Amino acid sequence: MIHFDTDYMEGAHSEVLQRLIETNYEHSVGYGADDYTASAKRKIIEACGLSDDAKVFFLVGGTQTNATVIDGLLMHHEGVMAASTGHINVHESGAIEASGHKVLTLPSHDGKVWASEVKAYVDNFYADETYEHMVAPGLLYISQPTEYGTLYSRSELEELHQVCSDRNIPVYIDGARLASALASPANDVDLPTLASLCDAFYIGGTKCGLLFGEAVVVPQGSKYLPCFFTLIKQHGALLAKGRLLGVQFDALFTNNLYQRIGEHAVKLALKLKQAFISKGYRLHIDSFTNQQFIVLPNAQLDRLADIASFEIWGLRGKEETVVRLVTSWCTNEADVDAFIAQL
Amino acid sequence: MIHFDTDYMEGAHSEVLQRLIETNYEHSVGYGADDYTASAKRKIIEACGLSDDAKVFFLVGGTQTNATVIDGLLMHHEGVMAASTGHINVHESGAIEASGHKVLTLPSHDGKVWASEVKAYVDNFYADETYEHMVAPGLLYISQPTEYGTLYSRSELEELHQVCSDRNIPVYIDGARLASALASPANDVDLPTLASLCDAFYIGGTKCGLLFGEAVVVPQGSKYLPCFFTLIKQHGALLAKGRLLGVQFDALFTNNLYQRIGEHAVKLALKLKQAFISKGYRLHIDSFTNQQFIVLPNAQLDRLADIASFEIWGLRGKEETVVRLVTSWCTNEADVDAFIAQL
Amino acid sequence: MIHFDTDYMEGAHSEVLQRLIETNYEHSVGYGADDYTASAKRKIIEACGLSDDAKVFFLVGGTQTNATVIDGLLMHHEGVMAASTGHINVHESGAIEASGHKVLTLPSHDGKVWASEVKAYVDNFYADETYEHMVAPGLLYISQPTEYGTLYSRSELEELHQVCSDRNIPVYIDGARLASALASPANDVDLPTLASLCDAFYIGGTKCGLLFGEAVVVPQGSKYLPCFFTLIKQHGALLAKGRLLGVQFDALFTNNLYQRIGEHAVKLALKLKQAFISKGYRLHIDSFTNQQFIVLPNAQLDRLADIASFEIWGLRGKEETVVRLVTSWCTNEADVDAFIAQL
Amino acid sequence: MIHFDTDYMEGAHSEVLQRLIETNYEHSVGYGADDYTASAKRKIIEACGLSDDAKVFFLVGGTQTNATVIDGLLMHHEGVMAASTGHINVHESGAIEASGHKVLTLPSHDGKVWASEVKAYVDNFYADETYEHMVAPGLLYISQPTEYGTLYSRSELEELHQVCSDRNIPVYIDGARLASALASPANDVDLPTLASLCDAFYIGGTKCGLLFGEAVVVPQGSKYLPCFFTLIKQHGALLAKGRLLGVQFDALFTNNLYQRIGEHAVKLALKLKQAFISKGYRLHIDSFTNQQFIVLPNAQLDRLADIASFEIWGLRGKEETVVRLVTSWCTNEADVDAFIAQL
Repeated sequence: MIHFDTDYMEGAHSEVLQRLIETNYEHSVGYGADDYTASAKRKIIEACGLSDDAKVFFLVGGTQTNATVIDGLLMHHEGVMAASTGHINVHESGAIEASGHKVLTLPSHDGKVWASEVKAYVDNFYADETYEHMVAPGLLYISQPTEYGTLYSRSELEELHQVCSDRNIPVYIDGARLASALASPANDVDLPTLASLCDAFYIGGTKCGLLFGEAVVVPQGSKYLPCFFTLIKQHGALLAKGRLLGVQFDALFTNNLYQRIGEHAVKLALKLKQAFISKGYRLHIDSFTNQQFIVLPNAQLDRLADIASFEIWGLRGKEETVVRLVTSWCTNEADVDAFIAQL
Repeated sequence: MIHFDTDYMEGAHSEVLQRLIETNYEHSVGYGADDYTASAKRKIIEACGLSDDAKVFFLVGGTQTNATVIDGLLMHHEGVMAASTGHINVHESGAIEASGHKVLTLPSHDGKVWASEVKAYVDNFYADETYEHMVAPGLLYISQPTEYGTLYSRSELEELHQVCSDRNIPVYIDGARLASALASPANDVDLPTLASLCDAFYIGGTKCGLLFGEAVVVPQGSKYLPCFFTLIKQHGALLAKGRLLGVQFDALFTNNLYQRIGEHAVKLALKLKQAFISKGYRLHIDSFTNQQFIVLPNAQLDRLADIASFEIWGLRGKEETVVRLVTSWCTNEADVDAFIAQL
Repeated sequence: MIHFDTDYMEGAHSEVLQRLIETNYEHSVGYGADDYTASAKRKIIEACGLSDDAKVFFLVGGTQTNATVIDGLLMHHEGVMAASTGHINVHESGAIEASGHKVLTLPSHDGKVWASEVKAYVDNFYADETYEHMVAPGLLYISQPTEYGTLYSRSELEELHQVCSDRNIPVYIDGARLASALASPANDVDLPTLASLCDAFYIGGTKCGLLFGEAVVVPQGSKYLPCFFTLIKQHGALLAKGRLLGVQFDALFTNNLYQRIGEHAVKLALKLKQAFISKGYRLHIDSFTNQQFIVLPNAQLDRLADIASFEIWGLRGKEETVVRLVTSWCTNEADVDAFIAQL
Repeated sequence: MIHFDTDYMEGAHSEVLQRLIETNYEHSVGYGADDYTASAKRKIIEACGLSDDAKVFFLVGGTQTNATVIDGLLMHHEGVMAASTGHINVHESGAIEASGHKVLTLPSHDGKVWASEVKAYVDNFYADETYEHMVAPGLLYISQPTEYGTLYSRSELEELHQVCSDRNIPVYIDGARLASALASPANDVDLPTLASLCDAFYIGGTKCGLLFGEAVVVPQGSKYLPCFFTLIKQHGALLAKGRLLGVQFDALFTNNLYQRIGEHAVKLALKLKQAFISKGYRLHIDSFTNQQFIVLPNAQLDRLADIASFEIWGLRGKEETVVRLVTSWCTNEADVDAFIAQL
C-alpha cells in the first residue's frame, strides 16, 4: 500500500537524520545558542537574500509557531485577519484566542484572501463610527501555499503587502508547506521575493523532511518581535536541546535539500494529478503543489482505498467524495507509477 | 574538558537513538495515535503500577508540560501553590500567568514545601473573610527532585497528599529529573508510590536521554484532565510526528533504560560529591541526586573551570562561589575520575 | 428635537433615582452583601418563578457580564457558539477572546440562530475526525431580543434548549433589552418560561432605566458558576458600593416597574412603526420591540434628522438608508406624536 | 453606632449626588463622549498642571482600572513589579494574571517599595544569564497612600522615578485613596508633582465620595496607552452611560470638593489617632492618612465594637488585636468626639 495521507507520517529525510546521528554525542549549549543553530540561521538568511538585520527563530511545531508569532506581533486590543479556512481559524484548537486575540475572518477563495477584501475590511472598519468597540485588525495572516494547495502569485502578494503596509498592518505568512510552493511550476514567488513582501513568515520543516521544526524569519528584525526569545519560552515553544533544530535546518539548507524535497514532492503530485485527469477524474481544486484534491465516484473509493491510503476531504453530493492525496520526500516514484497503473 | 553544565547538552542515549533510526522510514499516523505511542503508554502505566483508568500523555518540553497540565487542572479563578523557588515561578517566563493563573508562593526549604505550611496557607486563606477577593489555591505544584536536587521522603509526600486531598486540592509533581530521584540511595519513593501520592505528574525525558519529551501520567484518568488532547493542541504542545515521542519513551521503558540512566548519573554525582568532601570542600546543599552544589573558594574557580564546564550558581560572600555540577547518561566515569584526580 | 438614538442616553428612571436618593446616606457593607441586594435577588427569583437553588449576581455592564459569565461557563478548551451578528462577536472589542475563548459563529437569521443549525454544527463537529484539533462548542449564546429587535418564540427556545441539553451544552441568554421582549405583543415567552429554557441569562438594567447594572440569573444555581464571586472580581466586574445595584434592581422589581418600562417603550416603538408604514415607508426588519429599523429615502434623511436624532444603521443601495429608532422609559408620547405628524 | 469600617459604605457626597440629580433627565451621547466628561477631563488636567498632551480616562472601579492600565502598559512577555502587599498582588483575585501578566513581588516596607530594591531587582534581573527565561520587569506599580496608609515622600518618588526611567520602565501609581494622601500634613507631594513623577496614575473616586469611578491620568498621553478606549471596552470597563463618570468627577473637581473631602477625612483620622495615643493605646503603623491601625488589648475589643464598627486587621500575639479605623467624607465629627469620649 502506498501512503498519500499527509507529509508528516515518517521520520526525517536521510540527509537530516544523518546529521542528527553524526552530532548526537557532541556537547553543546542549550536553547539554540549553539553553533549549528547559528549556521542554520546564516544559511536561511542567505537563502532569503536578507541582510544582517533579519532575524531567524526556530520553534518546534506549526500551531505553536503561529500562536507565538501572532501574539508577538499584536497589541492586546488587536486581532488577526485570516481566511475563514485558515489553519489558525480552524485546526489550532483556539490557540490564538487562548493568548487573547480574536481571529477576524475574511472570505476564503480556495484558501486565499483577496487584497480588495482586505482593503475593504480595514477601511470599513475605521469608517464605522463604533470601531473603537471592535477588535482592530492588527495583522494579516495568509498561508503559502494555502490549506487547499493553492498559491498566491507575486502580483497578489504585492497587492496584499501594499494594502497592508499602507495601513501599518504587518503581513505574516504561514509557510508550513512553503517548499512545495517554491517548487511548483505555477509559482512565481521565490524565497527572497516572499521575504520582501511580508513582515514575518515561517519555513516549515515538519512537513519538509525534518523530525520537527519551523523557522520563523523576520526580514526587518529590528522592527518586529523584540524580546521574542522570552515570548517563545512563555509559549512553551523553546526546545531545551535547541541544537536539534539547528542541526536539522542546517542540513535542510545544505546542498539544496530544501529545494530538492519540494521538487520531488511536487513532481509526483503533479504526475498523480495528470494521471487522474487523463483517466477522466475531476479535480476538486486545481492545485499545483504537493496536495491534490480529487473527486472520486464513491464506487471507486473503496477500490482505491485498498491500494493507497489518503484522507477523505468531504462528501460531494451522494455519489462522489473528495479525497486529498499528499506526496512528500518519502513518496517513491515507482510506487506512484504502480498506483497510477491501477487507476 | 569534561562537561557538568547540565543534563540536556547532548542528543539521545544510544538505545533511544537506535530505535529512532530503525523506525525512521516507517509510515504511521500522526499526533500520537500510532502503535509505538500506545506501547509506550502501556509500559509507563505498568511501571507505575496503575490500572487502565490511568492516562498518559506525551508532550515535548517541560515548560509547556507544566503550563498545559496546570491550566487543565485549574478553574479560571484558581491559582497554583508552589515553592517560591519552583521552576514555574522563576524560569518559565510567566507561562502559567500567560494562561491566566497566578502562582501562589510558599516558603522554599531547599526547594521543598512543608505540608504544615501548605495546610496553614489553605486554612488561613479560607479563614480570611475576604478570601473571595483573592486567588483560590486550586493545585499544589512540587518537584521531585526539587530544583536544588533535594528529595521529598515518602512520609513527606504522604503528608502533603493528605493535607491536599482533605481540602480537595490535587497535587501535581514536576518530574523533569525524576529518574535521578528514583535512583538515589536517599530515596524511599518508588514510581508506584509516587503515582499513588499525587493526582498528576510527569516523567521527564529531555533530561533523561531523550532528544525531547515528557510523559504526563494521570493515575485517576477518568477524574482529571478531560479533553486534554485539545488543550495540548491549544497550548501548541502537540507534536505532529507524535510517534517520535512514543518511540523514545518506549525505548526508555525497555530493558530498564530509564532506571539505568538514573543510576548511572546519580552514581557519578555522588562520587563527585564524596571527592569534593574528601578534598575539604563544602557543600552548598546536601544533594543525593544528579545535581551537586559545591562551595568553591574563588581561588579554585578558575583552575577548575579550565578542566571542566559547570554552572555558576551564585556568589557566597566575597571569597566563595557556589557552583552546580550535573551528571547525566552521557557522563563518562573515567572522565569523572580524571577530574577528581585534579581537585 | 426628539431622541431615538438609543435607550441609555439619560440617567435613571425617577422611581429608581428616588430610591438611590433616599438610601444615599445609609451605611451598608460593600460588594453586594447588603440587605437591598438580598431583597432585589429575592424579587428577581420570585419574578422568574425559581426555587431557592437559583442564584442571582449583579454586575455593572453588558460586555463585562457576557465576558464573565461565558468565562465561567466554559472550560479552557471550549468556545461559545453565537450568531455572527451577536454582540459578543462584534461590539465587545474581543472581550471573550481576551479571556481565552473563541466565538464560534453560526449563521444569523435577522439576529437569530436556528436550532437545526446549532444541531448540525455540534453534530458535524463531533463527526469530524479531527474534532480534537478544533475548539469544542461548550456553550450557546443567544440574545432575547436580538441585536435586530427580533424575538425567539417559545417553540424556538424550546427547540434550542432541547438540542443543547441533549448534547450537554448550556444555553446563555443575553437579556440586555429583555424588558422590551417581555412587553412585546409578539412575544410568547414570559420570564419563568425563559428561565426554564436556559442555564443562565441576564436581565439588563442599563437599557431599562437604571444608571447601570445587569442581573445574572442562574436557574440551577448549584450546578453552574461555582465560585462566581471570585471570577466577577477577577474580571474587574465587582462594584465596591454593591448596594447601588441592589437598590436599583430592588426598585426595578417593585410595583412592576420593570414591566411598565418595557411596555411604555414598546408601545411607542410600535406606534412609530405603524406611522412609518402608514406613511409609505418600508421596514428593514419587522421588529416588535423597542428598536425599529426603517428604510428612509435619502431625500428624507436630512429632513428627519433635523427634528429627531437616530442612528444610521447602514446604506441600502444609493438611494436609501436604514436608520434605527429606539424608544425607552424616557421617551415622551407627546413628542412621538409630534414627530409622527412631521413624517 | 459610628462606622469606621471603610470609606465606601455610603452613596455619594451631597454635592456629587446633587449634580447627578440635576442632570438625570438630560440626553447625552454614551461612552464618555459627552460634555460633562470633557469638562471633567479638563479640570483634572488643570489640577494636575498638565499640558494638552495629557490624557484622562474614566473607569468604574479600582480592580478593573489596575488590570486595564497594567495590561495596556505591558508587552506580552513583561510583568509588573509591586510590593508583596500591593493590592494587585493580594485582593484583586488574580485580575493581573488573568490578563496574562505576572506580578513580580518586591519586599514591602509598611506597604512601600524602596528605590534601592527596585534598582537591585532590575539590575540583578538583567545580570542573570538566564534572564530571557524569566518575566521581564516592565512596569512598577505603587500605591499612594499605600494599603497601610503610609506615604511616599517627594524624594522617595523622585528616586523611584529616576531608577525606573533610567531603565525605560514606566511607573504607575494606584491612587485609590489619593485624596487622603494629598490632604495629609505629612505629605510633600502635591498633584502636579505626583503627575510629573510617574507615567500613569489614577485618582480614586469610589473612596472619595463618588458612587463609583476612577480617573486614569496619563501625563504623556501621546507616549503611553494608545488605543486605550478599545482596551477599556475589552476589559469590560467601559460604562455605557459614561456621562455619569463625567458628571461625578466634574463635581469632585469643582469648588475644591476633592480637596475638602480629603482634608475632612484626614483631620478626623488624625483626631482619632491622637485620642488613641493619649489614652495610652499603641499604633500598629504610624499612618498620617484616613486609615488608622491601632493595637487594641483584646479586653477592649468587645467594648469598642459595641459602639463603633471597624475592621479586624489581624491578631497580635494572644492578648492584642490590630484594628483598622477608616474615616471618610461621611464621617461626622460630633460622632467621632462622642466615640473618643468613650475610649
